[in-house]
Amino acid sequence: MVGGGQLARMTHEAGIPLGIRFKLLSDTPQDSAAQVVADVVVGDYRDLETLRDFARGCDVITFDHEHVPTEHLKALEADGIPVRPGPDALVHAQDKGVMRERLAAIGVPCPRNRIVADPADVARFAAEGDGWPVVLKTVRGGYDGKGVWVVRDEAGAAEPFRAGVPVLAEEKVDFVRELAANVVRSPHGQAVAYPVVESIQVDGVCNEVVAPAPGLSEELSGEAQRIALTVAEELGVVGHLAVELFETRDGRVLVNELAMRPHNSGHWTMDGAVTSQFANHLRAVLDLPLGDPRPRSRWTVMANVLGGDYPDMYPAYLHCMARDPGLKIHMYGKDVKPGRKVGHVNTYGDDLDEVRERARHAADYLRGTITQ
Amino acid sequence: MVGGGQLARMTHEAGIPLGIRFKLLSDTPQDSAAQVVADVVVGDYRDLETLRDFARGCDVITFDHEHVPTEHLKALEADGIPVRPGPDALVHAQDKGVMRERLAAIGVPCPRNRIVADPADVARFAAEGDGWPVVLKTVRGGYDGKGVWVVRDEAGAAEPFRAGVPVLAEEKVDFVRELAANVVRSPHGQAVAYPVVESIQVDGVCNEVVAPAPGLSEELSGEAQRIALTVAEELGVVGHLAVELFETRDGRVLVNELAMRPHNSGHWTMDGAVTSQFANHLRAVLDLPLGDPRPRSRWTVMANVLGGDYPDMYPAYLHCMARDPGLKIHMYGKDVKPGRKVGHVNTYGDDLDEVRERARHAADYLRGTITQ
Repeated sequence: MVGGGQLARMTHEAGIPLGIRFKLLSDTPQDSAAQVVADVVVGDYRDLETLRDFARGCDVITFDHEHVPTEHLKALEADGIPVRPGPDALVHAQDKGVMRERLAAIGVPCPRNRIVADPADVARFAAEGDGWPVVLKTVRGGYDGKGVWVVRDEAGAAEPFRAGVPVLAEEKVDFVRELAANVVRSPHGQAVAYPVVESIQVDGVCNEVVAPAPGLSEELSGEAQRIALTVAEELGVVGHLAVELFETRDGRVLVNELAMRPHNSGHWTMDGAVTSQFANHLRAVLDLPLGDPRPRSRWTVMANVLGGDYPDMYPAYLHCMARDPGLKIHMYGKDVKPGRKVGHVNTYGDDLDEVRERARHAADYLRGTITQ
Repeated sequence: MVGGGQLARMTHEAGIPLGIRFKLLSDTPQDSAAQVVADVVVGDYRDLETLRDFARGCDVITFDHEHVPTEHLKALEADGIPVRPGPDALVHAQDKGVMRERLAAIGVPCPRNRIVADPADVARFAAEGDGWPVVLKTVRGGYDGKGVWVVRDEAGAAEPFRAGVPVLAEEKVDFVRELAANVVRSPHGQAVAYPVVESIQVDGVCNEVVAPAPGLSEELSGEAQRIALTVAEELGVVGHLAVELFETRDGRVLVNELAMRPHNSGHWTMDGAVTSQFANHLRAVLDLPLGDPRPRSRWTVMANVLGGDYPDMYPAYLHCMARDPGLKIHMYGKDVKPGRKVGHVNTYGDDLDEVRERARHAADYLRGTITQ
């Protein structure tokens, strides 16, 4: 696996019972996954020779992030190393312009969008539709709200063009909430769909996930799963695919973003589903039969643990374990910095309000925003 | 953790979400746990200086097996390293003579037993009770049926004395089945009890575990849990304690063996309980609050995967995953040898017959004793 973040850490955890020999390419020996994996190569994934050396002897290469250059992935494939997801699929998670064009071509509903040349062009884009505000995104390099701007007039549209990266304009969707449809697809085309979840974002960062999305109609849930399965199939995705969606006020779902790797909106599956997203991602990239994606409990809630003002989380950690013996804590081994994702908690049960309160309390207490 | 077997492998797996930096002392770099742990020291646990070097910088030492000499553990404690479980507790899992004497002193029901000097003394022991057969055990070094003999007359009682280790004689209990009561205790005395399970042994090796033990009366179940909690408390056990029991034909439970570490009879907890035995063992030895031991499903069945005649298990592995997407497979990364424990499977659900058939089928298919 290329990339030593928490996704790689949790993928290794899921690989242990599968008997998988996991090899990691990590930026530093201190990275989240490098702390727990036996076979670690420290190196820069942007360097082709480093990647080639790493890939030697691997049965398959997969990723903790989308940042490996497409041409490097093609070079690895030319060397005969299976790359999953492959570069032709992964480019749609790397480049939002390519993604939007392809989704339009296969008839998947998206917000109105087009590549824009400059602030004046953004004004034209606004005038072509319902006017301001308009969402601008650099086509490459954004994550967790970075590389995304909501602009209210032409003067405010200058900033995104400064990086010199193509800019995509999108209508500001009038949504009631955000959903995520997680699916996993294997090389010979087997696919499984997890229940559609509600994802609650704060400042562009995923804060909480409720599985399944409360009150979602069977029709919209089915539509969201169909969209995700269609995208996986049409784009040739192998492994886990997260499709982030808007549920609009007028009862439609529109695709917001794609991620071709285990995803924050699927962390609930570690304790809430028969087979976790990490186990199924590994099963897919190794072309093993996929595991049952069904939920084990009526409700599962995931809350991200963000760093707060107190670098030492240990006393809070003890408190939360003592208060709620059923709390499932997942820590990433990362130093605490304000706003940084350092872990997550999962809770499950029959009563949504209670399950949600338990997750919320633990995440807030660990962050230090509440003290009792 | 001292010892690189599958118990250490699964303990590391459970430690990843807890954010624990896991350090391993392993006999070889190929051991089951050494394949998946980042921080591995290869060395001989029987050598005190190796243990001392390993222990430096550890917050606490715990074990994958009971074979570390008591005097070495005392030396580590004298060096100021917390050893959990401590040598004064662990000796009861190391020496069956010491164990029997102590259990008698605290009023825990055991089979009739005493240390015997020679075959003639075994004959006297038989005559003192219900006669032959008699069970003989070397007080140290046995496991999985090794170091245990069932003898039918004085002439047959010579073998156990050949090793020069003290020999314990026990009545051959007329039992209807074997049970196991698993509990976990922390340094400040918090304790949790898992549901009592039925353990099905074949040739002295655990083959299958059913959780909870079907049809066990509340009274006997409570009695078994009370015995395990009493033993943990009175012996000062810290960490996981497995108490193997006989359920007698006349409706009592008698203690057979103790293990002070995660135990085969607790593997079902990985998929069947809110908190696994491995997570709770770690929480105990680190003096963290313990996790909820309750079951997540009506029934969970664990079946050991033993090596068969086919060293390549991969095609069978694919078959089992495809046949049963809800099967939870746990492989240990060990080479296949006939009769060797190389993994286990867990299944869970509401219908015991079905849950049991699924586990049995997978274990038998992986071993190669059935082919469809």
